[in-house]
Amino acid sequence: MDYVTVEHVAKVPKLKDPILIEGLPGIGNVGKLAVEHLIDSIDASKFAEIYSKDFPPQVFINPDGTIELVKNEFYYWKAKKKDQRDLVLLTGDYQGLSSHGQYELVEKILDIVEELGVKEMYTLGGYGLGQDIEKPKVLCATTDVHLVKKMKKYGAVFKKNEPGGGIVGASGLILGLGKIRGLEGTCFMGETPGYLVDPKSAKAVLKILMKITNIDVNLSALEKKAKEIEQIAHQLREMEGLSGGEKSEELRYIG
Amino acid sequence: MDYVTVEHVAKVPKLKDPILIEGLPGIGNVGKLAVEHLIDSIDASKFAEIYSKDFPPQVFINPDGTIELVKNEFYYWKAKKKDQRDLVLLTGDYQGLSSHGQYELVEKILDIVEELGVKEMYTLGGYGLGQDIEKPKVLCATTDVHLVKKMKKYGAVFKKNEPGGGIVGASGLILGLGKIRGLEGTCFMGETPGYLVDPKSAKAVLKILMKITNIDVNLSALEKKAKEIEQIAHQLREMEGLSGGEKSEELRYIG
Amino acid sequence: MDYVTVEHVAKVPKLKDPILIEGLPGIGNVGKLAVEHLIDSIDASKFAEIYSKDFPPQVFINPDGTIELVKNEFYYWKAKKKDQRDLVLLTGDYQGLSSHGQYELVEKILDIVEELGVKEMYTLGGYGLGQDIEKPKVLCATTDVHLVKKMKKYGAVFKKNEPGGGIVGASGLILGLGKIRGLEGTCFMGETPGYLVDPKSAKAVLKILMKITNIDVNLSALEKKAKEIEQIAHQLREMEGLSGGEKSEELRYIG
Amino acid sequence: MDYVTVEHVAKVPKLKDPILIEGLPGIGNVGKLAVEHLIDSIDASKFAEIYSKDFPPQVFINPDGTIELVKNEFYYWKAKKKDQRDLVLLTGDYQGLSSHGQYELVEKILDIVEELGVKEMYTLGGYGLGQDIEKPKVLCATTDVHLVKKMKKYGAVFKKNEPGGGIVGASGLILGLGKIRGLEGTCFMGETPGYLVDPKSAKAVLKILMKITNIDVNLSALEKKAKEIEQIAHQLREMEGLSGGEKSEELRYIG
Repeated sequence: MDYVTVEHVAKVPKLKDPILIEGLPGIGNVGKLAVEHLIDSIDASKFAEIYSKDFPPQVFINPDGTIELVKNEFYYWKAKKKDQRDLVLLTGDYQGLSSHGQYELVEKILDIVEELGVKEMYTLGGYGLGQDIEKPKVLCATTDVHLVKKMKKYGAVFKKNEPGGGIVGASGLILGLGKIRGLEGTCFMGETPGYLVDPKSAKAVLKILMKITNIDVNLSALEKKAKEIEQIAHQLREMEGLSGGEKSEELRYIG
Repeated sequence: MDYVTVEHVAKVPKLKDPILIEGLPGIGNVGKLAVEHLIDSIDASKFAEIYSKDFPPQVFINPDGTIELVKNEFYYWKAKKKDQRDLVLLTGDYQGLSSHGQYELVEKILDIVEELGVKEMYTLGGYGLGQDIEKPKVLCATTDVHLVKKMKKYGAVFKKNEPGGGIVGASGLILGLGKIRGLEGTCFMGETPGYLVDPKSAKAVLKILMKITNIDVNLSALEKKAKEIEQIAHQLREMEGLSGGEKSEELRYIG
Repeated sequence: MDYVTVEHVAKVPKLKDPILIEGLPGIGNVGKLAVEHLIDSIDASKFAEIYSKDFPPQVFINPDGTIELVKNEFYYWKAKKKDQRDLVLLTGDYQGLSSHGQYELVEKILDIVEELGVKEMYTLGGYGLGQDIEKPKVLCATTDVHLVKKMKKYGAVFKKNEPGGGIVGASGLILGLGKIRGLEGTCFMGETPGYLVDPKSAKAVLKILMKITNIDVNLSALEKKAKEIEQIAHQLREMEGLSGGEKSEELRYIG
Repeated sequence: MDYVTVEHVAKVPKLKDPILIEGLPGIGNVGKLAVEHLIDSIDASKFAEIYSKDFPPQVFINPDGTIELVKNEFYYWKAKKKDQRDLVLLTGDYQGLSSHGQYELVEKILDIVEELGVKEMYTLGGYGLGQDIEKPKVLCATTDVHLVKKMKKYGAVFKKNEPGGGIVGASGLILGLGKIRGLEGTCFMGETPGYLVDPKSAKAVLKILMKITNIDVNLSALEKKAKEIEQIAHQLREMEGLSGGEKSEELRYIG
């Protein structure tokens, strides 16, 4: 096994000018939730698994009692209508643990998508605000200036100097290393409190992606999950209330 | 010396369809205790040592004053009866310290056992519950669905979504990376409080292995050790009692 | 991409006996502030970017909404007068995160500057004192004894056994690894409280560099920044005052 | 520069069956103090410097204002009398920072000493007890059983199960990796409180080495340093006394 290894599990048909959509674990798990929901909705086909020596030395256990080495997964989807585009989708259990591992992983990801003909990429993540958000906005950053105007039309928000720390992790690195290769890309960051998984923020991100891809995704499952999470958040707030105000203040800023 | 180096210390006779049994240090040292007890009981023969640059830069001191570089150790055992199978056994001082080192170590382990003809593997570990356990159950996860049914018959327990965090470390990785190579395997996890070495849990794991391997192991030494540990645990609890209830509450959740 | 990768973004004209001036992020950001100010003042030309797998997996966001992979940047400047020398300038977003990464980065930096004919190097940094400084002195260390006398004439200070911990990071390593290659160099360390960016200290360092390079740099922008920082420091001290004297004592020694 | 690089700074004359004596920084700096004192006393000649990308990215500053990259240093010494042996001596600023770096460094050290014909090695270190010691004993561990008896005659002490954690760092690893190469060696560990540099413990170690090597070393400089340290320790204890008994209790167990 190489440092980063690709296992092809199915043959990929010829894709026509495909788009990459990436969502790996991160703040609020916004990107991962969005891409997994999209994969399920459009019934995309898995074609490759990525293993890395920089992922944790860990297996997960399936409901049937079998184990799975932690990994990233690539899917493809062929366009069904004329105004749609073929898709390559990436999600997974982990990002690389170290800086070095992140760079190696993203380089391999870019090798794969370039070979499939990808020239346009969308990376999805969360933007942690550390406070409750009624209606999460979707912030945006791009590889090229001409994309900024385009993404505003789709409803994405550009805020000068936000996020101030830039974008850390695969969503940023795919654009940064991709830009050097001449690939275009946009990162959508759904606003999120950041201390629980956030299907509401994932939904906001998907709504913009639906406009870009002309794919109609049923969001009701995400909405249901969002309600469940809201109930859990409500219960946590009540528990905080019982144990005194100071603690609640602290909790609000986790994440 | 390579990153992971194998030193063969004895020639291995031709093994017939051997089974790998692995037990390295971990929670409650359950796996290591079990495999070391098995090696002693059946008088298995050491044939190789593994050194790794990802083990601590450390030597241990033998009772005679000589030093030993920290290592893993491979043993073999030839079946004595018709209903038994040849064994390859692995134990050692450490697992790899880093993710990268764990992957390199396990890849080397799999290289060695594949060359010896191993197709069936058992990895042993502890499942830390953070509380006292009267009668430890042995949880189980496998590479293949058909093994689940088989292992239940031997007394192993499958609990959906347990362990929730999957299996971290060599016991998981041997199955995960082995599965990719087409090897079959099962991980047995003995329930353990997790804050002391746990011969009682090791005994529970060995009892299942005895049924699988048709090897009769005298467990009295483990039982004696278990009683000693119980006394130590008892003393610790009394000390907690003297220093107040709150502290005892904390201690219960260590590990 | 290699572990450390150089992207040439412009052709460098033939340089005549050029001097390297380096200022990467560090204590008080003294070195980075000084070199960036110099680059702006003399309108130096960027000719290369350095990426490293040991930088954080991060992109920064430009004011126009586009992203930039974190990097180091090389500039050159051709002398305008007879008593000036051609310059190679280095600044950037980060130093290497790990020891290994620092060594790899600095080796690559030295490869580049040696190819450009650099034989004389100045590395800039801060010397954190953890207390307010009315008039920051500029400490100094060199690769060769004959430089000590020379630098004293320019106003740099040599204090025996200071800094006691030597010089940690790129500013030290460029001299240390450069010395092995036969390059000469001097590190200037501006005294700084060390808990905020320190344009006043950067100005003190630049003043010495101006004498060495015979380049006239307008320092008013640095002076303006220094006044802003002084105001912020003043406000912080007042906030400390309100929250009690003990806390102020602690804050003084951060950095 | 390789990961570990050797710079030969002088030609080594033909050595006759030389002994390696190693003392790198560690608990109480016992080994480093002892070897540096020996090098000074016998006026050994430096022949090589070792640099490593796993040392900190740091230079130290000499009293004359010049910098030195952190390194390890090799010296040799030709026997002056018939009952003496040629020596190879190793000391330095740092051990490797990571496990991997320690293994790489020690492998390189062994390459060098094997080439010089070394078959017998002495590694020196401290054994931290965390309490004041009137007369430090020198513990001992060896690569081979026949050395145990020999070292006892020289006054070294073997305590079963001590140090319980074995020997961590270069002093252990040189013996452990050397043993695999067929080299013989002994580690001497001077007992030390461990929270200050300990010339008294270094003296105890050197006394045994003097018997082994038949070299007469003037220990008065070490004795003078030991008295200075004792005064500092006395002052620290008084300061503890002033600030209350509890704190003194804590301090006693640092290291």
